Amino acid sequence: MIQLKSVAIVGVGLIGGSIGLALQHHKIAERVIGIGRDRCRLRKAYEVGAVTETATWDDELAGGLAGAEFVVVCTPVDSVPEQVRQAARHAPRGTLITDIGSTKRTIVEALAGHLPNDCRFVGSHPLAGSEKTGVLHADRYLLAGRVVIITPTPDTAPSDADRVAAFWQALGAKVLSMTAAEHDRAAALTSHLPHALAVALAAGLPDQMRDLAGSGFRDTTRVAAGDPEMWRQIFIDNREDLLESIGLFRELLDRLAAAIGEGHELELKDLLTLAKKNRDALGS
Amino acid sequence: MIQLKSVAIVGVGLIGGSIGLALQHHKIAERVIGIGRDRCRLRKAYEVGAVTETATWDDELAGGLAGAEFVVVCTPVDSVPEQVRQAARHAPRGTLITDIGSTKRTIVEALAGHLPNDCRFVGSHPLAGSEKTGVLHADRYLLAGRVVIITPTPDTAPSDADRVAAFWQALGAKVLSMTAAEHDRAAALTSHLPHALAVALAAGLPDQMRDLAGSGFRDTTRVAAGDPEMWRQIFIDNREDLLESIGLFRELLDRLAAAIGEGHELELKDLLTLAKKNRDALGS
Repeated sequence: MIQLKSVAIVGVGLIGGSIGLALQHHKIAERVIGIGRDRCRLRKAYEVGAVTETATWDDELAGGLAGAEFVVVCTPVDSVPEQVRQAARHAPRGTLITDIGSTKRTIVEALAGHLPNDCRFVGSHPLAGSEKTGVLHADRYLLAGRVVIITPTPDTAPSDADRVAAFWQALGAKVLSMTAAEHDRAAALTSHLPHALAVALAAGLPDQMRDLAGSGFRDTTRVAAGDPEMWRQIFIDNREDLLESIGLFRELLDRLAAAIGEGHELELKDLLTLAKKNRDALGS
Repeated sequence: MIQLKSVAIVGVGLIGGSIGLALQHHKIAERVIGIGRDRCRLRKAYEVGAVTETATWDDELAGGLAGAEFVVVCTPVDSVPEQVRQAARHAPRGTLITDIGSTKRTIVEALAGHLPNDCRFVGSHPLAGSEKTGVLHADRYLLAGRVVIITPTPDTAPSDADRVAAFWQALGAKVLSMTAAEHDRAAALTSHLPHALAVALAAGLPDQMRDLAGSGFRDTTRVAAGDPEMWRQIFIDNREDLLESIGLFRELLDRLAAAIGEGHELELKDLLTLAKKNRDALGS
């Protein structure tokens, strides 16, 4: 069982806050330092008990990171590489740093090679988002039973990968390891594509039909309530894999539409049955 | 407040069973007669308390409908017209009959004109489905706060439409009235399209990626676990409106894909923001 004196969380929103709550609940870390740009949000994180102390990114970074044994960067994907590098400059020599970004290739490639101060980075992606944002929705059990993908590179020391894996396991997660490229391809299909579909579906709902949108429409579009800026960054960052996934989806939708339009009832029933089989296998 | 001695429910599954439970819970009907083809399912409906007595469709229809003041046909859309006509033959003279089919134009057109035995039909569609099926998932509150669309025609007596509306209102639902054609166009966009997208998305999930499908994928594909035969009938019955909705969706998905592929970040942000606004307006 991993035991840490001090963990720094850069960006204490839904996931950063949930990590902070879980670290304390499971008694994994004595100190949890929340670091961020916005004093008000940091105060909120402290008030809900997600962190035991706070430091602002611009003025108090060095102090906040002074005793950190482990740093988790929980900010939108575009900011991650620069924030990891900055954190490495101020953290104790050799500190291990991870992130929670929904895309991994750009981040991992940007951080290849040596970090300042002998720090090391291993990318992570907990599959535990929600359309909700902000530390007020943080939940100590958010990661319990969820999958966290870690993306070590050939240059990653196995002991570093193991330690990052042990960190997530201590929070109750199940860890899978793959390359950043494998991650991004899978995430395009399992997360970014559903998000894109939900966005296109929700964007096309005329106001006057709002009353008619039942639980099916609500479920199917739920993720579209997510933060637009966060998702803009994810879509752009993973655009090649996402466009390929959209292409595969279009082919299936075309098959479905053709079966409907041409009255191919067997083909239609086959697609509906395959979809049900796949969905049932995921559980509720 | 509507008060009935006896309501017959033809097809006691998720929705039929929920209606039966609610009728008794709100003390709207003294007797609730469950009618169906399968003795085992009817027994289950009786055991969970969804109905107070049962009758088989093939042998006991006349007896089951003998005292019915109100009949609700809750079977898949293809069977509705013939079952309404059969029910009219055996129900007391002038009995009011409704249904719960997810498509309305074909049903309402098939039942235009006089029914046997001076019975009258007004179409209904409660927006209260679920991917679950069967009376074991029935819930006395399934209709509470939900919208039920009724589709009277120019030939419908206003008092009949009012009585059907009052029936649904007594179960806690909010009733909207529109033409069957308006209903089908709206349902294509708000229900059949999301279902088609969920089906194409779930059908395209490779088995080896199952572990990576997080809550976003699950929400977006939830409805794809619905009954394939029920949805085959709905898709075929409403194919023209559904194909038009799929076309509108394709245009939005193409715009989104173009914004991603060509790096039009403002356009992309606009679409994400519009989707969030529309989704937020629906509530959780």
